Amino acid sequence: MMERLRVGILGATGAVGQQFVRLLAGHPWFEITALAASERSAGRSYTEAANWIGSEPIPDEIASMIVQVCDPGLECDFVFSGLDASVAGALEGDFARAGYPVISNARNFRMEPDVPLLIPEVNPGHTALIDQQKWGTGGFIVTNPNCSTVGLVCALKPLADAFGLESVHVSTMQALSGAGYPGVSSLDILGNVVPYIGGEEDKLETEPLKLLGKLTGGVVQPLHTVISAQCNRVAVLDGHLETVSVRLTEPATPEQAVAAFRDYPNPIAAFGLPTAPDPFIKVFEDPRFPQPRRQAGLGGGMTVSVGRVRPCPVQDLRMVVLSHNTIRGAAGGAILNAELLVHQGYLKAK
Amino acid sequence: MMERLRVGILGATGAVGQQFVRLLAGHPWFEITALAASERSAGRSYTEAANWIGSEPIPDEIASMIVQVCDPGLECDFVFSGLDASVAGALEGDFARAGYPVISNARNFRMEPDVPLLIPEVNPGHTALIDQQKWGTGGFIVTNPNCSTVGLVCALKPLADAFGLESVHVSTMQALSGAGYPGVSSLDILGNVVPYIGGEEDKLETEPLKLLGKLTGGVVQPLHTVISAQCNRVAVLDGHLETVSVRLTEPATPEQAVAAFRDYPNPIAAFGLPTAPDPFIKVFEDPRFPQPRRQAGLGGGMTVSVGRVRPCPVQDLRMVVLSHNTIRGAAGGAILNAELLVHQGYLKAK
Amino acid sequence: MMERLRVGILGATGAVGQQFVRLLAGHPWFEITALAASERSAGRSYTEAANWIGSEPIPDEIASMIVQVCDPGLECDFVFSGLDASVAGALEGDFARAGYPVISNARNFRMEPDVPLLIPEVNPGHTALIDQQKWGTGGFIVTNPNCSTVGLVCALKPLADAFGLESVHVSTMQALSGAGYPGVSSLDILGNVVPYIGGEEDKLETEPLKLLGKLTGGVVQPLHTVISAQCNRVAVLDGHLETVSVRLTEPATPEQAVAAFRDYPNPIAAFGLPTAPDPFIKVFEDPRFPQPRRQAGLGGGMTVSVGRVRPCPVQDLRMVVLSHNTIRGAAGGAILNAELLVHQGYLKAK
Amino acid sequence: MMERLRVGILGATGAVGQQFVRLLAGHPWFEITALAASERSAGRSYTEAANWIGSEPIPDEIASMIVQVCDPGLECDFVFSGLDASVAGALEGDFARAGYPVISNARNFRMEPDVPLLIPEVNPGHTALIDQQKWGTGGFIVTNPNCSTVGLVCALKPLADAFGLESVHVSTMQALSGAGYPGVSSLDILGNVVPYIGGEEDKLETEPLKLLGKLTGGVVQPLHTVISAQCNRVAVLDGHLETVSVRLTEPATPEQAVAAFRDYPNPIAAFGLPTAPDPFIKVFEDPRFPQPRRQAGLGGGMTVSVGRVRPCPVQDLRMVVLSHNTIRGAAGGAILNAELLVHQGYLKAK
Repeated sequence: MMERLRVGILGATGAVGQQFVRLLAGHPWFEITALAASERSAGRSYTEAANWIGSEPIPDEIASMIVQVCDPGLECDFVFSGLDASVAGALEGDFARAGYPVISNARNFRMEPDVPLLIPEVNPGHTALIDQQKWGTGGFIVTNPNCSTVGLVCALKPLADAFGLESVHVSTMQALSGAGYPGVSSLDILGNVVPYIGGEEDKLETEPLKLLGKLTGGVVQPLHTVISAQCNRVAVLDGHLETVSVRLTEPATPEQAVAAFRDYPNPIAAFGLPTAPDPFIKVFEDPRFPQPRRQAGLGGGMTVSVGRVRPCPVQDLRMVVLSHNTIRGAAGGAILNAELLVHQGYLKAK
Repeated sequence: MMERLRVGILGATGAVGQQFVRLLAGHPWFEITALAASERSAGRSYTEAANWIGSEPIPDEIASMIVQVCDPGLECDFVFSGLDASVAGALEGDFARAGYPVISNARNFRMEPDVPLLIPEVNPGHTALIDQQKWGTGGFIVTNPNCSTVGLVCALKPLADAFGLESVHVSTMQALSGAGYPGVSSLDILGNVVPYIGGEEDKLETEPLKLLGKLTGGVVQPLHTVISAQCNRVAVLDGHLETVSVRLTEPATPEQAVAAFRDYPNPIAAFGLPTAPDPFIKVFEDPRFPQPRRQAGLGGGMTVSVGRVRPCPVQDLRMVVLSHNTIRGAAGGAILNAELLVHQGYLKAK
Repeated sequence: MMERLRVGILGATGAVGQQFVRLLAGHPWFEITALAASERSAGRSYTEAANWIGSEPIPDEIASMIVQVCDPGLECDFVFSGLDASVAGALEGDFARAGYPVISNARNFRMEPDVPLLIPEVNPGHTALIDQQKWGTGGFIVTNPNCSTVGLVCALKPLADAFGLESVHVSTMQALSGAGYPGVSSLDILGNVVPYIGGEEDKLETEPLKLLGKLTGGVVQPLHTVISAQCNRVAVLDGHLETVSVRLTEPATPEQAVAAFRDYPNPIAAFGLPTAPDPFIKVFEDPRFPQPRRQAGLGGGMTVSVGRVRPCPVQDLRMVVLSHNTIRGAAGGAILNAELLVHQGYLKAK
Repeated sequence: MMERLRVGILGATGAVGQQFVRLLAGHPWFEITALAASERSAGRSYTEAANWIGSEPIPDEIASMIVQVCDPGLECDFVFSGLDASVAGALEGDFARAGYPVISNARNFRMEPDVPLLIPEVNPGHTALIDQQKWGTGGFIVTNPNCSTVGLVCALKPLADAFGLESVHVSTMQALSGAGYPGVSSLDILGNVVPYIGGEEDKLETEPLKLLGKLTGGVVQPLHTVISAQCNRVAVLDGHLETVSVRLTEPATPEQAVAAFRDYPNPIAAFGLPTAPDPFIKVFEDPRFPQPRRQAGLGGGMTVSVGRVRPCPVQDLRMVVLSHNTIRGAAGGAILNAELLVHQGYLKAK
């Protein structure tokens, strides 16, 4: 058995940081050796510094670990970043310059031309962009997409490959945990829907084009398609549900689309990555599913669920897509990215 | 002051029937003189027969009224029908044959060529179809649309008139009261979304075409447009929220669209109908609105709210539409229909 | 018709301040002439300064009013205070010293020996304490109780008068609006109960003793009874529900208790106060009621609801009590206090 | 390794029956060999007959099993009964008469003098009552308590043993799943509390006395104490939360009470029962816990959580108690009962 890589977590006390701690408990490849957060938290034990919101207690070996400031110098082979976008730009750059690989959940570098925006099942080859990055020796940044992007792109990829993708309509019903903690006031959302999430639609209309793009000549050519996104917040704890309509280059029947999902040649299927779900995509035939509370947790929160695949009278096909926003859409997605990078040789012990 | 017309309510003990009772309390033109329901309820007082779900008590003059069976012979000038679709077809026909005007909320006759499917602000002239109906002397049937249809059509009408309407994408987030009582199990919907409402999408894709159609030569020519509907149930008490995207015949800017809403020549504005809201359509500029819990009750539940009017990268325009499903979308809509029919002379004292 | 008194609102932009604005719209005796809040809000229009959380728009005459700082010098005959407890102590004192009557919802002065803690239907005579206050000429402070106290005390008063009160167990299920805005995070309360509200139980165990006490020799002798309170937060918007058990000095049957509620000689019944509800207490026979969402709004949110009056095998009687926490339990209660003070001559035009 | 006992499930398609199926998947001692339900379900596969409400799919080996009618003749060593009380009386008797041990979750036989009402950690010796039962050879009935009883009794037992128990006040906040499926209408409970659950308070006031009683001379002498219960339904999926106040025979401090919980000599601790949780009782020091959504699942839903242990000004001690109503309070409790009976030799292969 291989030695586990030493992992640091930036923004360890926040909502995403806590998910990293939770999901890395008992991970076979990675071991948390450093926790870093703001100056307010530094110097205190993780138990004291984090307002832990999980149901299970903090893993024993983490509870008494002392939180450090987010300065390079952490004892680890690479870092996961759950930093808020307001500070991630500067701090992630600091770590990359200091020679740390940074596996980030923040949005700051996602659209940079030389930074991979990565979903292992979708565009594993985009990691080649790392070779173009010019930080310190050994330092680089890899990002995962926004929580509402990931489910959509996973569902679009088999269709884009099989039939070509012309345009997409997506209307989301997004969970509360996507807004962080304390996030959405209960007075705003109990028995209600809020038809607006600041900045969300822009990410959902642009990130998929890069993710579905082709890396040629060292440049990712975005997929030539158009996305229209309308984002809503609903009273659900975890799981972003999306109604989707697509226009395809070659029209396909629902049966052909379901076959495309089932036959999609998952490029990481044979890699044995610990966090990779099986199946990657689950297709439901019962029209009542997928539902956030019932299916967001499938495959440990990493499986993407698709249902109600049927013709669209305006475009070609319609479907419903569900993915877990804080696992597949945040910390779990970043961990799977790191696992792919281990497999590809980008991440290794210092 | 005119003598009030005598009103009977079919299905008086059900959820829609109770809304009729609630909304007709103190109505200046109509007075409930007969309550009818199934044989199980007949012979009992309304208080005993109805499992009253409103917050306010049953109006005094109604509480002790004895519920009758749904047979013609009720003492009234016309009837409102809140009957379930499973029995509405036969019973509404019986009443029409016996010479009663039937103002129905049920779906059974909505798409019949000689039955008006009516929203007074949208297609008041369709009531001319009544003259083609062949029931008993004085008997006819007029219907209002499905609860998810009405908000959409009210928002589409000014756009269709001003710019022409080519195609529509709509994704709904529908309230629990739309499923009746007891309706949706709390175990299915608390902290959840159900991406399926049986039969709903079909109604939402077909009823608008008739409502927006033109009556020429005694026939309603459906509007030539295509609608794609995806319907979801959310944990909201009242108010159906819909994200909408439209392709127009002549492209319009959001400003032009807002102007079309504001300048729409509401055909019933001058009629003084007691239940007609002012404004008919309210447009919000704050992107957080409209929200079901906060704005569904505007205009006594009869105003339709529109927000987030903006360009659509796939079609032409996007917006969010909200309407109260049990008032504008059911009993309140039927009452407004009856008021229009009084104004037009179709409803009068026997 | 009398000239309306000019009213200032301290803390006008907060949740309680907004309720004052909402409930005073169209008030026959009071007219808002000054709005005051923190320095951050001062100088801006109320529309700009307040993050208005109500469903109805801000009343027109208030929307453009400029918010001032909370310094004496406001143009008004008296002030309502919706200030946070962290600043209410100093600021309310400033206003009283400057000669303003202060009708406060804050807890700071509630238990001061010379400050009336007032519920008009319960202890209207306690206003005589005002004469002992030593602020500036014309200045005084009157307070209303905590939102969970008021319902309990209103329900206990008729029993204490009729049968004597030895001890009380109360377990509360309190609404989210009691925590202010943004208040409780949706992630903490959706599908959950939190069995703890900081500081609440202490207030609920002490304030009732003063409210139910007797003013003799210029001193309020607290009622000699013992209260045990356990406070819980539930996913309800408005309305605190409480299960109550009481031991009486002279045992009473449920029928006798219900008679005590119905025959309670409401001391303000004949005063014609605009905000006084009728009935003061509503007793339900149907064991399913009162429920927060259905009955908290009775009497404009000022009626206290009582249900399930029945024997207690451990003490003497049990019941369920409901009151609206932001109306009866905050701004509405303070307005009724002011109305009583007008009637008694303590409040008048300067 | 021992041969697994063959298990039949009566009422297998209902909510409790489904929990039996779910919790017995992979059970080391028990194997489902027969599923029985009403005539309507008989003859169909379990997948077809059950409206499966769980998130995970039906276990493979169960999905295609054919549902039988609830007549003796099932191929199994004993049966679990998740039957509704309306039919459990007759059918459970039929099976006992036919020689089947019946481990029942229904209430029908709970208070029969010769039927054990059993919580293994509380009164394991009560199973001796089995020897008095006069059904067919080998047939007997053992019951577990009502879902709101079990948490309360587990928390009271250490206190009753250590200090004596004089009287108890309990106010419950009960989960929706306690009402079965479809159970509570979403229109009744969203954003609401219902202060009444038919029949619940009676069970909660009587069952604990038998459970905490002493078996002497072949008779269970109920504990001599008095319980006052007030039961409420809240918008929570799983987990009954209860605020409790107790009067003790010998007064105890909170520290002594916590010590009593921690030092309680769990009588089954050494038996190695697969479903027995560790710890049996978990005591929280953070006053915000336990919370239903966060802690109901502790110990696989079998641990009982206690928090806020503190003095009571009216009685002696107060606390908050939480237990999972469909696991510890229903199917899980029954399975633990069966495990104890295997250990004691009452259940064995035929």
